[in-house]
Amino acid sequence: MATLRNLSKSINNTGFGVNANAEGGRLVNKDGTINLRKTGISFLERMSWYHVLLRMPRIKFLILVFAFYTAVNILFATIYVAIGIQYLKGTDAGGSLANQFQQAFFFSSQTLTTVGYGHISPDGLVANIVASLESFAGIMSFALVTGLFFARFSRPKAYLKFSDNILVSPYKDGKALMFRVASQKNNHLTDAECQVTTAFHVMEEGKRVTKFFQLPLEINRINSLAISWTLVHPIDENSPLFGMSEADLQESNIEVMPGIKAFDDHYSNTVQQRTSYTAKELIYGAKFLPTFQRSPDGGHTLLELDKLNHYEKVSF
Amino acid sequence: MATLRNLSKSINNTGFGVNANAEGGRLVNKDGTINLRKTGISFLERMSWYHVLLRMPRIKFLILVFAFYTAVNILFATIYVAIGIQYLKGTDAGGSLANQFQQAFFFSSQTLTTVGYGHISPDGLVANIVASLESFAGIMSFALVTGLFFARFSRPKAYLKFSDNILVSPYKDGKALMFRVASQKNNHLTDAECQVTTAFHVMEEGKRVTKFFQLPLEINRINSLAISWTLVHPIDENSPLFGMSEADLQESNIEVMPGIKAFDDHYSNTVQQRTSYTAKELIYGAKFLPTFQRSPDGGHTLLELDKLNHYEKVSF
Amino acid sequence: MATLRNLSKSINNTGFGVNANAEGGRLVNKDGTINLRKTGISFLERMSWYHVLLRMPRIKFLILVFAFYTAVNILFATIYVAIGIQYLKGTDAGGSLANQFQQAFFFSSQTLTTVGYGHISPDGLVANIVASLESFAGIMSFALVTGLFFARFSRPKAYLKFSDNILVSPYKDGKALMFRVASQKNNHLTDAECQVTTAFHVMEEGKRVTKFFQLPLEINRINSLAISWTLVHPIDENSPLFGMSEADLQESNIEVMPGIKAFDDHYSNTVQQRTSYTAKELIYGAKFLPTFQRSPDGGHTLLELDKLNHYEKVSF
Amino acid sequence: MATLRNLSKSINNTGFGVNANAEGGRLVNKDGTINLRKTGISFLERMSWYHVLLRMPRIKFLILVFAFYTAVNILFATIYVAIGIQYLKGTDAGGSLANQFQQAFFFSSQTLTTVGYGHISPDGLVANIVASLESFAGIMSFALVTGLFFARFSRPKAYLKFSDNILVSPYKDGKALMFRVASQKNNHLTDAECQVTTAFHVMEEGKRVTKFFQLPLEINRINSLAISWTLVHPIDENSPLFGMSEADLQESNIEVMPGIKAFDDHYSNTVQQRTSYTAKELIYGAKFLPTFQRSPDGGHTLLELDKLNHYEKVSF
Repeated sequence: MATLRNLSKSINNTGFGVNANAEGGRLVNKDGTINLRKTGISFLERMSWYHVLLRMPRIKFLILVFAFYTAVNILFATIYVAIGIQYLKGTDAGGSLANQFQQAFFFSSQTLTTVGYGHISPDGLVANIVASLESFAGIMSFALVTGLFFARFSRPKAYLKFSDNILVSPYKDGKALMFRVASQKNNHLTDAECQVTTAFHVMEEGKRVTKFFQLPLEINRINSLAISWTLVHPIDENSPLFGMSEADLQESNIEVMPGIKAFDDHYSNTVQQRTSYTAKELIYGAKFLPTFQRSPDGGHTLLELDKLNHYEKVSF
Repeated sequence: MATLRNLSKSINNTGFGVNANAEGGRLVNKDGTINLRKTGISFLERMSWYHVLLRMPRIKFLILVFAFYTAVNILFATIYVAIGIQYLKGTDAGGSLANQFQQAFFFSSQTLTTVGYGHISPDGLVANIVASLESFAGIMSFALVTGLFFARFSRPKAYLKFSDNILVSPYKDGKALMFRVASQKNNHLTDAECQVTTAFHVMEEGKRVTKFFQLPLEINRINSLAISWTLVHPIDENSPLFGMSEADLQESNIEVMPGIKAFDDHYSNTVQQRTSYTAKELIYGAKFLPTFQRSPDGGHTLLELDKLNHYEKVSF
Repeated sequence: MATLRNLSKSINNTGFGVNANAEGGRLVNKDGTINLRKTGISFLERMSWYHVLLRMPRIKFLILVFAFYTAVNILFATIYVAIGIQYLKGTDAGGSLANQFQQAFFFSSQTLTTVGYGHISPDGLVANIVASLESFAGIMSFALVTGLFFARFSRPKAYLKFSDNILVSPYKDGKALMFRVASQKNNHLTDAECQVTTAFHVMEEGKRVTKFFQLPLEINRINSLAISWTLVHPIDENSPLFGMSEADLQESNIEVMPGIKAFDDHYSNTVQQRTSYTAKELIYGAKFLPTFQRSPDGGHTLLELDKLNHYEKVSF
Repeated sequence: MATLRNLSKSINNTGFGVNANAEGGRLVNKDGTINLRKTGISFLERMSWYHVLLRMPRIKFLILVFAFYTAVNILFATIYVAIGIQYLKGTDAGGSLANQFQQAFFFSSQTLTTVGYGHISPDGLVANIVASLESFAGIMSFALVTGLFFARFSRPKAYLKFSDNILVSPYKDGKALMFRVASQKNNHLTDAECQVTTAFHVMEEGKRVTKFFQLPLEINRINSLAISWTLVHPIDENSPLFGMSEADLQESNIEVMPGIKAFDDHYSNTVQQRTSYTAKELIYGAKFLPTFQRSPDGGHTLLELDKLNHYEKVSF
């Protein structure tokens, strides 16, 4: 009875539906993003450009920025040509349209970046107004672009590496669900905290429905994530997984979704990372092998990150 | 007795007065701002320009910045004309005052933006000092303007969409107050927490006074605000709304003011959003309909945001 | 006995010494800074320039920045004159030293701000190297200066206004220490939390020593700091002030040091403010009068900040 | 029994292994960094450049940035020479290759910094494209460089000074482990919290293994870190150090690793600092002497930071 109450409470705390059978596919992708699409409101209402521009791969971002720079220069070059290239002092007004455009394009880029060599300069009211607007537009738009570029570079990230697999391992007198995590880079995380949500299918009144539970961990908070951390959910009578066999876990299409929050003292900020394990990544009857050892010279500890997923099969 | 103690405590925790009958109109606007004016100290003491410039609609902000850019150029152009246009080498000193001003204006804009083409350049001590000051002022003021422009763009926002209505729905053996919320954009919120304050009028010693209560929620914290979240305040004997009929709720001029705080891992920051429901937005006897479903291809979940306020009438 | 244990615990949590009799004057200044000097390590080790530059009054900061700009230009102008003004193409090398310095100074300012008109330009290896270094130095130092300028402008601040006085007021069947606070500007604070530390002198073994206590508040946390908040410390048997008369409080040189922490959703950040009340600011036997009322048109609430300290004398 | 349970729990919360005997040397360096190397993944996967560039000593950072600036100019100068120096109008195309390179180098630096004097300017399609790319690259790369420069300057830091030694002092009827900390600069920390992890060697089944424990503190949280704070771990029956003699502590190779987290209201941010004490820094039988006194004029408190480690030997 008490157990049931606990479980029903866990369901609600996950943030997913209580008896939702409407979900499709896996809920959380391997990289921690939610496998969800939003409809019913317009594209623009659904988009946060800041999020898009922050998440985009670096190369794509740089191409986009460069394309934007080129497009703005094309726009202003067209305007200068329309005004008349003779209003850009220092250009050769006698050339072909292509040649005129080319000269206007480079004058535009010199104005937009505020490099302003001055061998070409605006002459007359209209060209001066456009050039004045362009240098202003250049400062404003480069503020966004360079701000984003630095924000991407300095964005607090957890740099966590999770084990590829989640294991059902022997634990005390029974079993436990275990996975591992380590900080992958030259960052140091403290006050790390982990929450694990699970989802699996059950038959309810003849229908296949998805149930959600929060999985309690033996230790869900540590002072320092210096070496690798093994997260342990004991499969005891308080666990929603209690009594499920390997076949049950596979058939129920289980998904385990951990999230870790920690404090990085170089960012002086909280960082967070999530991932997801599906039934295919669950190994029944295995235990993890050590990831760290004394360095040969005895002077420090060696954390071998390639061993994060090293395990050996065991039988219960 | 215990109930009364609880309630009297709730009153105080809301941050609103204990037995205030002095409030006017709704307390919190639909967009979450407080419907309050401050008097008794000077305008400047009451204003935080940073808050004003951050909150202002984008178009208004850009117009303001452009007006500022123009005004500064007019100011410096006037100074250059006062010094004498002949001290700007490269200008035509023989023109009309309007023509002189025009040339000074564009030289000013080239200096302020540091584009500095150089076909016009300062000559003599005074013009050089002014130009040197202007380029310095340009760098300093564009630091504020571009900083603000980027701060506006990158400001952590919750992007929450609340249901338009708050319902009194059947719940377990009784009733509950319910409203819904979903994150509207391509952001992912975790560790979401909700607090709900309510205010309504009661007659006390023959006077109409406003009372404030914090409404306890069935679940007030979830791990992940991935799909829509229905907030539930059970109207049981611990609720200040216990025993109130539809007419009572309307007459008491009830206002329900929820606030949600969550962690956005792209900003790596806590975000917050508030709203308010007045008696007009309260539907007595209705329940919400689902907002999400499996995608046609079964590959992911579809959250239909236009259904966030979908409900059907029910009778108790 | 229980009371004593509580009190001894409170002492330690304040962060001040347990039986310190070495403090001098008031501990916390009215503006919340600590009245403390640090010695024993060198000036540079004791200084955080970032803190100094952030705290400095705006006008002082701008003067400092301008002085820095002028000083750097004087430095580089001296170098250009030393190299020889003839290596700055476009200058008049035949003038007096003062005239040469003047030309070099303005060339320097055009380089530092990257305005680079070009009517003067570096010629020859040495002048080019110096100019190249100067434009680099200009970009780097303006990065600090403009970063600081914006950081000062956008720094999260609480903008709290405390009542000038702290009162001993009638409260329930006894007395309570009360002071008030309100947010002064167009900011909205939520999740406000208050901690109050007090210090007063007692005679211990014939010596006057300072004792520190944390004062428990009736309500120390509110959802929304929308209107004014009255902080109440009941002077009951759990209070270290229990049984002290007006004369006792004055003689004991009491100091009450409140600190408030809250969340500002425009900064999306926690803000904090502290102040201090000395015995001179304590009014024995008084109660606060209301600070807010309905607006004449009934449409909103008026918070009258000039009434924050309004109280009337009462007798116990 | 209860004690044992507590201890076994403490072990796990530290974030270090339960019965790890694989660690090498001290775990945490004096400056709070972890004495750990990561292997098994490629160098690039292990590196967070942001962390490296933020942690690097200032002088090294400035040299690196300057080297980068020079390298980029060399690269572009080479390109301009390859294109043909005659396409940079204003240069002397007749000179030696070294002379051509020199002219191209300075044109490059004028373009990269956007100073753009204009006495040299690009001519023809190719030179114009390269110059346009360079000014764009200049803006983008200076965005990173200046962003980092300011981020380094403004990075929230705790500026804590720990006592050099950790003492075993008399405490109540027994002993306690004590160390001291004070904020060293003109910053003010509030809500300071301390966690202490210890590691020492024990013999287990004939092998020397390292055990980890969290050490409970008498007071682990204070309101204000205004003056020095003495952290006290009572060595009573709940302590893993209970019953260990001076020789035991030395032989067990004890390491005590404190971490302090606090709120700095000028950064409006949480700051954190860690350190580590090894057996060599442990003084058995000593107590700290006061660090602060009234200023001669009585107007304020003097905190003498050079006395932070002042202690006197005592016998038990």
